[in-house]
Order: sequence, then structure tokens, then C-alpha cells
Amino acid sequence: MSALDLPANRHCSVARSLELLGQKWNLLLLREAFFGRTRFAQFRRIGIPPATLGARLDALVDAGLMQRRQYRDPGERTREEYLLTDAGRDALSVLAALGSWGDAHRPLPDGPSIEYRTSDGTRAHLAFVDDDGRVLDRTDVHPQPTPAYTRR
Amino acid sequence: MSALDLPANRHCSVARSLELLGQKWNLLLLREAFFGRTRFAQFRRIGIPPATLGARLDALVDAGLMQRRQYRDPGERTREEYLLTDAGRDALSVLAALGSWGDAHRPLPDGPSIEYRTSDGTRAHLAFVDDDGRVLDRTDVHPQPTPAYTRR
Repeated sequence: MSALDLPANRHCSVARSLELLGQKWNLLLLREAFFGRTRFAQFRRIGIPPATLGARLDALVDAGLMQRRQYRDPGERTREEYLLTDAGRDALSVLAALGSWGDAHRPLPDGPSIEYRTSDGTRAHLAFVDDDGRVLDRTDVHPQPTPAYTRR
Repeated sequence: MSALDLPANRHCSVARSLELLGQKWNLLLLREAFFGRTRFAQFRRIGIPPATLGARLDALVDAGLMQRRQYRDPGERTREEYLLTDAGRDALSVLAALGSWGDAHRPLPDGPSIEYRTSDGTRAHLAFVDDDGRVLDRTDVHPQPTPAYTRR
């Protein structure tokens, strides 16, 4: 039984995201894709068994986070590579939130492992903001279930 | 073998966070804790088997995301409840990022399931901002491995 079968989770967008993004390897594959890796052999570096890698890439394509594109190296057969879609790129804030938590609470001796920059080099980080774009004190932000979640 | 044993992951704060937060149930347990639930019987509503729930709460306490507190209902024995620590509350942006992705790409018929507000009722959402707190176009934010990640 999936956790999504329960009322506590069925109406929850966190649980719905986790069903896909919470599957082992998927966020690490997205990380690699954000770093510009596109090919099966490149994705293998995260330590995923080849059969699992094929299944995960298929699932990410089916879910609309990646798309296939054919390529052909000189003297080789045609192969497929995997590119992020807009929906896949939208998962960047999930990676950034996980990375930021890790940097704060599982710090590495050499400092943060990933940084976020705009194309002109501006450093970026995640923050809670209000509807006018003002940064809020995140210790004063509280999640609340909406009627969509509590109505069953 | 843990994915963290590989160079591609060992130096990555995303992978280090996932080792804890990526374990099935843990983020749903944190969601419940943010909603104010503290007791074993309350956490069961997410559909987690009792033995697994005990192990997960122990792991979250050991990892510093929750702390135990004793309570005693009239006529009952003393029991323990589980409260978020500061490190646990710091995972709110992970929940918010997952929820925001789910709201955009796995929308529910009744709209978002969780909303974020400050104590004075101001609505909050996650955004990428620069060091001066200006909101950035998130489609122009790109993650890059730092030397701490690429140096092996």
C-alpha cells in the first residue's frame, strides 16, 4: 500500500512530491542533470546499479521531469541522452533546501558543496518571502494545513 | 553500501541530507510535527507501521531533529512525546520546496494543501534571493559544484 492511500497523505502535496522525488536516487540524478550531465554513463557515477538507473530515468521521463534526445558519437550507434524539462528544473528549490539543511547541520570540512548563481554571477540562496518579495524571518514561518488538506 | 561512500556523493550536502531526510516517512513525520502533533498515536495516522515509527522517531531524536519530553495523562502511566528541535524546524524549507513542486506539478483539485504564514498572518513562500534579499528569477538560478565538492 502506498502512503498516498491514506487520508493523511492523499491530500498533501508534500506526500505527492515525495512519491516521485523521495524515491532513492532521483534527487541525486536531478543534481547530476543540473550539473550538465546527460548520459547514462555519466549518471552511473552516483553509484546507482545500471538496471536501477534505466528504471529511474524511465520514471523521470514518464513523470515529465526529463526528456530524451538522440545523439550519435562518431563511429558509434545512436544513443539517447536525458535532459531536464521545465518541471525537472522546478525541483531546484528541493535540492537547494536539502543542501542548505546539510550545510547547516551536516557541515563538510571544506564548506558548502554546491553554490547557486544567476547567469551574471549573483549568488542566490533560498528564503521565505512575503507576496511583495520581502524576506521573512524563517523562524517565524509556520505551515498550516488548508481546508483542501483537512477536508476529507 | 551507502551512496555516501562514493566520491560523487560523499562531498555533497544534498546527499548527506538525503541520507536522513530521504528515508521513507521522515519528512511526513516532520510535517506532522510542524502541524503540532507530538504523540506516538498521533503520528500513526500517516500510515507508518508501529515498529517502523518507533525506529524513525529514535533516528530523528539521535540525529537531533526531535527531542523527547515526558508527559502523563490523568490515570495513565508516564509516556514520551516528540518535539521539533531547531535543527528539525530548519527542515521547513525542504517541506515547503516539496509542497511547492507538488502544487505546481501534481496539483490537487482543491488547491494547495499547506500554506505558510508568519505569526501575524502574512503569507510566505520560498524564493531564491540574492545576498541583499532581492528576489531573483528562479529560472536563471543555476547550481554549481564548489571546489569542496569537486576536489577529491
